[in-house]
Amino acid sequence: MTDRYRIAPGASVSLADRTTDDDGGLDKDEGEDRLRDNIDRARDLQERLYAEGEQSILFVFQAMDAGGKDSTTEHVFGPMNPQGVRVASFKAPSTLEKSHDFLWRVHAKAPQKGMIRVFNRSHYEDVLIVKVHGWAEADVIERRYDHIRHFEALLADAGTRVVKVMLNISKDYQLERFRRRLERPDKHWKFNPGDLKERDHWEDYMRAFEVAMERTSTEAAPWYVVPAETRWYRDLVVSQILVDTLEAMDPQYPEPEFDPADYPPGSLS
Amino acid sequence: MTDRYRIAPGASVSLADRTTDDDGGLDKDEGEDRLRDNIDRARDLQERLYAEGEQSILFVFQAMDAGGKDSTTEHVFGPMNPQGVRVASFKAPSTLEKSHDFLWRVHAKAPQKGMIRVFNRSHYEDVLIVKVHGWAEADVIERRYDHIRHFEALLADAGTRVVKVMLNISKDYQLERFRRRLERPDKHWKFNPGDLKERDHWEDYMRAFEVAMERTSTEAAPWYVVPAETRWYRDLVVSQILVDTLEAMDPQYPEPEFDPADYPPGSLS
Repeated sequence: MTDRYRIAPGASVSLADRTTDDDGGLDKDEGEDRLRDNIDRARDLQERLYAEGEQSILFVFQAMDAGGKDSTTEHVFGPMNPQGVRVASFKAPSTLEKSHDFLWRVHAKAPQKGMIRVFNRSHYEDVLIVKVHGWAEADVIERRYDHIRHFEALLADAGTRVVKVMLNISKDYQLERFRRRLERPDKHWKFNPGDLKERDHWEDYMRAFEVAMERTSTEAAPWYVVPAETRWYRDLVVSQILVDTLEAMDPQYPEPEFDPADYPPGSLS
Repeated sequence: MTDRYRIAPGASVSLADRTTDDDGGLDKDEGEDRLRDNIDRARDLQERLYAEGEQSILFVFQAMDAGGKDSTTEHVFGPMNPQGVRVASFKAPSTLEKSHDFLWRVHAKAPQKGMIRVFNRSHYEDVLIVKVHGWAEADVIERRYDHIRHFEALLADAGTRVVKVMLNISKDYQLERFRRRLERPDKHWKFNPGDLKERDHWEDYMRAFEVAMERTSTEAAPWYVVPAETRWYRDLVVSQILVDTLEAMDPQYPEPEFDPADYPPGSLS
């Protein structure tokens, strides 16, 4: 079910041709049942990943504001064992971070063996918002795609599966979500009047996403464009990507370094 | 004077054809005078680098044991303003470091803008001792050269000049230095009987150095092979590489953000 959302290496990407609203032909109850099954399966595999301690996952979320990065993270990764899952959120870079190359702060948060790391925003901001606003020269952006590909290949060679998800919404849907945020005092903290101004650059953002995905979707670190307006379906697709990734990694409990037969029932007394 | 020690990109390297003992036709007094001049010049340029805050230097030392990494660092970088110079020594990787890709701990220590970072050993250990002892597969080592080149290009694009120095000594000279360490109780801490065993792999180390330099000496991040047995000359050559690097970077004091004419003599009272 996730293959259709995957960007093949070298493929050109047209977001206008991709749905933002899909339910995969399922009804909501069915979708929620399958989400629960996926989460049970992912929890089991995540425990094996942690016990094995040889591989890791880097799960990157990018989206326009109100695309659902926070809630997808909560719904899919919240039920995992927190000992094995860590979220890193990347906001505007600090003075220290700006005094380094753009991958410095990101590399520091790469997952150690056995762990799942979720990135809420990431190094892709440096070829998205930075490109849209012209905060870096075109040739600098151009080289960043190469640096990103090389960096993700380095992680892959060290046993990290890199998965990148763009949560895809329409401009109208975003406006509706912004309205909702303004109606609910407990959501005001998520609203920033500056977000409205970014809407003026919507088309530029879509083009920046397309180019970024074209230049950086690889076998070792694929991009997925997930329709994100039907939220239970969005969560289901993301959970499926997680399960598929874990199953392909096939983590195994390590062989015990003792012989369990040396400790028969009742021997620990 | 340093060009002859530089490895041109793509050149093949034969350490057997390179001198380990050279004095550049200078006598010691002359050499020490020039070293002092270089240090004064480097101190001035380093202050500009720090004030400018736009560029940085990564100075990597690699050598066989007793090659003089510690003393060259002390003699050349010791006289700099310590506020702008930091040394990182890389020993056998910790458990945490081993649970990441081999560049993770190194990237964390990349210099921030305005700084000089000295690496006493480095990521090159992962294609030297690791290769000599077969602690990684040949294809893993092979990909590491690419990862290193890409990583150093990332730093270069962010304004870091990467300079790599191999302090070149002969196997006989090393033995003589080991003897000296054993004769002096205050040098015993630098001796490790295991170092004697590494001497059995001398030729393998030389070949590993040659391949590493052939694969990773680039315009943006050149290797230098510095003859290191005549220690005052070794320090002079390294100080010259530092001065040449700083002069090529041409750091400038930033324009003041105020008009000095607004603060005439006597106005601060």
